[in-house]
Order: sequence, then structure tokens, then C-alpha cells
Amino acid sequence: MALVHYPVINKRGEVIVSAITNLDLHDIARAVRTYNAGRFYVTTPLEDQTRLAQRIITYWTEGGGAAYNPRRAEALGRVTVKTDLEEVREDIRRSGGKPPLTIATSGRPYEKTVGFPFVRRLLTDQSVLLVFGTAWGLDTTVLDQADYVLEPLRGRDDYNHLSVRSAVSIMLDRLMRNDID
Amino acid sequence: MALVHYPVINKRGEVIVSAITNLDLHDIARAVRTYNAGRFYVTTPLEDQTRLAQRIITYWTEGGGAAYNPRRAEALGRVTVKTDLEEVREDIRRSGGKPPLTIATSGRPYEKTVGFPFVRRLLTDQSVLLVFGTAWGLDTTVLDQADYVLEPLRGRDDYNHLSVRSAVSIMLDRLMRNDID
Repeated sequence: MALVHYPVINKRGEVIVSAITNLDLHDIARAVRTYNAGRFYVTTPLEDQTRLAQRIITYWTEGGGAAYNPRRAEALGRVTVKTDLEEVREDIRRSGGKPPLTIATSGRPYEKTVGFPFVRRLLTDQSVLLVFGTAWGLDTTVLDQADYVLEPLRGRDDYNHLSVRSAVSIMLDRLMRNDID
Repeated sequence: MALVHYPVINKRGEVIVSAITNLDLHDIARAVRTYNAGRFYVTTPLEDQTRLAQRIITYWTEGGGAAYNPRRAEALGRVTVKTDLEEVREDIRRSGGKPPLTIATSGRPYEKTVGFPFVRRLLTDQSVLLVFGTAWGLDTTVLDQADYVLEPLRGRDDYNHLSVRSAVSIMLDRLMRNDID
């Protein structure tokens, strides 16, 4: 999966670069490790943000954090920082992975929207890159270029304002858990 | 549901009071609001921590944050800070709620462990207080006093180290979502 920091939109619908959040890396890396969901790519075009993310990852995989908490090291070891989704696909290609279908996520339904059961079935024989946006979500250019868009999470009504950390966790659980009751 | 900061255990199994985390309040309040899961109780015996939590809640429900983001206000408006679970039950009683069954959560199976389908069925006609621990989880005294313990989340193997924010989100989705596919 990939967590995108550009192009995403802000509250007013303007395209922005969002800042990398320490806790996004931790919470999402732990969820990705829990569900064995492959690599966790973080994309940002900003060099200082890339350095920041690398420092966090190195601390927890090689520095003091690794000795303090090896399970955290196992999770953060899955994080790779790249400039954009094109670089992510290049990295997957270089590491011998099959070219993935791109499935974007959005809080709103879209013409290419597919449901969770559809994506669960895809995952049995298809490589998938699941793409999440930070801030107020992915810009439409990312949605336009995706092969599919995953249906929005619905709770009990139309309140639709989960953190990206919660949304990733719930979506990985719906897509990747072994035991469906 | 309740998020407990004492008695919880640290990495070495010792009983501690954990610190309240700003992002726990935000992420979990948003998930509770999404699934209409009633009130979100935060318990701590420390007065300064109670004041800190109150300041956060007031900022987002009445202060600058409420104007900036009304959806956040709607979520944080569900949070109530109490000293312990006894005070939580008293608050539920005072506000006219039915006395709840207490269901604790734990990363390990327990003699009273019940599955997600069992709790989903309970929720159709029973008031339930779902209790989560911060740090390395609830102390056994809380598990001993609970009516049931909810089964641990399992991903793809025995890695079992989700953040409490992720665990709450996934568990609410498994228990409270309307559309089971």
C-alpha cells in the first residue's frame, strides 16, 4: 500500500503537499505488518520530509528504538519512502514484484468504485497497490489514474471523518483478515 | 466504550498509570462517532491528566477548533473523562442508561474470551461497556472483574502489536458496521 502526501487536497479542496506525521508511519506500519500486506510506501516530493521519515525509520529499525522494541522494528522495516507513485511502481518492478493494479481510496463514491468483496477476490491472484491520501484525501488526478476506487467506509450513518490511521486499519482488516465470521 | 490509563501494564508487566495521548482522543472519538458507539469514556486517576484532556475537549467542542472543524467537534463531544470504571458506570446510571455488561479487551486469550459474533448478537438487546487498555494493555484485575473478554485481533500470523487507535477502529468496525459483506 501507499500513503500519499502529494497531490492531496485540503479542507477547501485545494491541492497541497501535506506533512509526514510520525504516528501515521508507526500505526500504519504496525497494521501492515499485522495483516502481512506487503510493503508500506510513503510518498512525498519534499526532500526534507523524506529525510525526516528516513530518520524515524532508521531510529526504529537500527537505532535505540530497535533494541527497545523489536516488534516495532519489524513493522517500521516495511516502510519505504519514494517521491511519487511512479517511483513506487518502479521499486516494485525492480524488486521482482508483479506490476500491481492501482486501487485508490476516497471518502466519496466514484464512477470506478468497487466493493470490499471484489478487492478480496482480486487479491487471491493479483498484485494490488492500495493508495491512501493524507489531509482531506487524494486529489482527483490520482483517482482518475487508478484502475479502481475502493468504496468509502460507512459506519452507522453519513458521518465520514475517520483518521487515515483508522481507515487504513479497518480497510486492511476487511480485505486481508483470514477469519471472516 | 472506555479507554483506561490505570491500571495498565508496561513492557515488563508492571502496573502503571499511562499518559493521555492527544491523538488517542481524536482518532478514537472519530471512530466512536462513525459507528455511533455511544459515549467514549477516558479514565485516569491523575488530576493534571484530567485537566489536560478537558482542555483538549473544550478547545475542539467550544474553542477555536469547533469553528475550524465542526465534524471534529461532533466527535470530541462524545468524550467524558472519569477517574475509573466505577465512575463510568455511575455516569451511565445517572444519565438513564441500562447497567452495561463489561467486556474487556486483551491481546491474549483468556478463560472468559468470547468472539466477535457473540458480542454483535449481545449488542442487539444489551448495553455493553467495551474496555480498552493503553500502554501494554489492561491489568489482569480489570480482566478479572469484566463479564467477558473479547477475543484478540488476529491478522495473518501471530504478530500482535497494533496501536490502541487501530485496535479500537477495527473492533468497532467488526462489532458495529451495518453492512456485513
